[in-house]
Amino acid sequence: MTDALSIARDLIRCPSVTPADAGALGVLERALTAAGFICHRVTFSEPGTADVDNLYARIGTEGPHITFAGHTDVVPPGDESAWSVGAFSGEVRDGFLHGRGAVDMKGGIACSVAAVIEHLAANDGKPRSDGQTGSISFLITGDEEDVSINGTIKLLKWAAERGEKFDHCVLGEPSNVETLGDTIKVGRRGSQSGTLYVDGVQGHVAYPHRAANPVPDISRLIVAISDEPLDHGSAAFQASNLEFTSVDVGNTAYNVIPGQARAKFNIRYNDNHTQASLRELVETRLTKACGNRIRARIVWEPSNSNVFVTKPGPFTELAVAAIEEVTGRKPELSTSGGTSDARFISSYCPVIEFGLVGQTMHQIDERVPVKDLEKLTQVYRGILQRYFA
Amino acid sequence: MTDALSIARDLIRCPSVTPADAGALGVLERALTAAGFICHRVTFSEPGTADVDNLYARIGTEGPHITFAGHTDVVPPGDESAWSVGAFSGEVRDGFLHGRGAVDMKGGIACSVAAVIEHLAANDGKPRSDGQTGSISFLITGDEEDVSINGTIKLLKWAAERGEKFDHCVLGEPSNVETLGDTIKVGRRGSQSGTLYVDGVQGHVAYPHRAANPVPDISRLIVAISDEPLDHGSAAFQASNLEFTSVDVGNTAYNVIPGQARAKFNIRYNDNHTQASLRELVETRLTKACGNRIRARIVWEPSNSNVFVTKPGPFTELAVAAIEEVTGRKPELSTSGGTSDARFISSYCPVIEFGLVGQTMHQIDERVPVKDLEKLTQVYRGILQRYFA
Ligand SMILES: [Zn+2]
Ligand SMILES: [Zn+2]
Repeated sequence: MTDALSIARDLIRCPSVTPADAGALGVLERALTAAGFICHRVTFSEPGTADVDNLYARIGTEGPHITFAGHTDVVPPGDESAWSVGAFSGEVRDGFLHGRGAVDMKGGIACSVAAVIEHLAANDGKPRSDGQTGSISFLITGDEEDVSINGTIKLLKWAAERGEKFDHCVLGEPSNVETLGDTIKVGRRGSQSGTLYVDGVQGHVAYPHRAANPVPDISRLIVAISDEPLDHGSAAFQASNLEFTSVDVGNTAYNVIPGQARAKFNIRYNDNHTQASLRELVETRLTKACGNRIRARIVWEPSNSNVFVTKPGPFTELAVAAIEEVTGRKPELSTSGGTSDARFISSYCPVIEFGLVGQTMHQIDERVPVKDLEKLTQVYRGILQRYFA
Repeated sequence: MTDALSIARDLIRCPSVTPADAGALGVLERALTAAGFICHRVTFSEPGTADVDNLYARIGTEGPHITFAGHTDVVPPGDESAWSVGAFSGEVRDGFLHGRGAVDMKGGIACSVAAVIEHLAANDGKPRSDGQTGSISFLITGDEEDVSINGTIKLLKWAAERGEKFDHCVLGEPSNVETLGDTIKVGRRGSQSGTLYVDGVQGHVAYPHRAANPVPDISRLIVAISDEPLDHGSAAFQASNLEFTSVDVGNTAYNVIPGQARAKFNIRYNDNHTQASLRELVETRLTKACGNRIRARIVWEPSNSNVFVTKPGPFTELAVAAIEEVTGRKPELSTSGGTSDARFISSYCPVIEFGLVGQTMHQIDERVPVKDLEKLTQVYRGILQRYFA
């Protein structure tokens, strides 16, 4: 069975909690091979992490090349006894397919595979039947929900090294907030973390003039750095935002003024900034707030979450048209929310995210209306028809 | 041998690192019993701490009653190989008696015992030879340097329960800063600790509007509470002072806005405040700084370090006169510095602290000029003569 519901159910029945595959990629590999795809199972390793399986499948050899990306791994089910049906049962009840991954994102992958198989069947088994060239591929990882080390980053690099060139990507993460069709994600803010260190001079509380207390100093710096907005948003993005997530001294002695304090922060930044300009902006605020008095420094964390955006154009327009046709809704082009593998894909080709409705993701009783699986399959078909028209 | 140097040396040779007595109290007990004192060895216990020995010795049964207080326990020697002479050798070299406790405060106790023995010998073995009544006693604990649980607090309570009444106390802690005679401590600021808790709402850094970050809030409160002085000092005291000694969240996740932050603080306060009025002052600042927006509260630590001061009067004057006669210096009546057992004694009778010079206390090569032992003995003799005149 190659309809979306059957594929989704088969996937849910594989308990593929990261880093386990539990047969999930095999479900896709069989269906895609039968439809004429060349499949590659690629296992990546890294010291200190579990090996993880990935799947790359392609039909066609020339461009234009559209790739569907996704992950078959899921977060743990939590307290399984709290689920209404088995977390890995894939049971349909009252019109909903239940199970971990139903919306994030085994359901989304199942729809894309079903849509592609339908599309190929309608076009003599090829991406297009008009004699023009074209390729469709799948970039499926088993390492998204946890450390994301042996997943999409390495799979993209592996593909690039074999000469794969992607023109456009659709990532089937649950992008919709309340109703299928309400949201396409066309970008994400960048993420940059750092630690602020403030050095004082340790001493006894009874002799504060012989010490320099870093606690009020770091408090002033935290206020000075985070009080003013970093910007007021851009055409595609909400405002950048800096949050101090921890401040720590760890001094348990009530009579000792500590010698150092540190504070961790994270910035979500939009396309008003590059990583470099953002760091400079924060460092400038720090220097100004320190004056000649406070000794402080920032240690920046390495970051591979740069800001990216797929600007409105023919690709976003054909997706919007396909969504409108099926759902009757004009989706918002959104850049809000947390990060996803789209941040890695964006270095290779324009990427949009459109999938199911995210409401139950990562929760007990994760589930998807069977109707949504059907509709999302039709949206993906509409995208393929327009892409190869 | 009952001269101060001999007694001090005998005490130093007992490695009485808290809670060990190592024979130290026995040295005093033998010398005092021989001089006519009634001695009581009292051992106090408390679950979770080591039992500690204490000594109470008295001669005379009526007032006026002057008591010499002190501790025979010492802090650990640290790296013994770094000492010029053995930390517990009690060696005299180049005019200095060396060893842990030489100034803090086996030397001071030795001087008071030697002075009392000389005084008794000069007065037919009694506190006074003119037929008037009088008592001299010693309150010596072995639990001052560490937790101070089985020491002076309990010894004072034990003495009160047996009907002991003290009129005045001399505590022989190293009170002088640079030269013998420069400082009498006549009081100490109170000490009050507390923890400030600020509650926010935990959330994801990508959705700050759904969270409430307590880190900038607690930073504002720390500045608001500690920025303005608590007072500008009093006749006897320097200004009160509040120090935040730690601020902690303990959040290791860079993408999570934490739900709570806490900060520890300690206040050293003078006689402009009582414990109750001080707490009210800080709570009022907090309430004002929180406005209707920040949810914060203070949990106060129990404190037995109230502010105390022995006001200038006949007792301080006779001590000043004795010091001036021996050292040629008019000592400053000081209330600065950290706490000592004087805070407990002050609930029972007026107390002053005068002992050796504190410079080498708690350090490698702690040592005292033999000349200072002789001079301090003469100062204590001068105090006794004037007290019983
Ligand atoms: Zn996902
Ligand atoms: Zn001491």
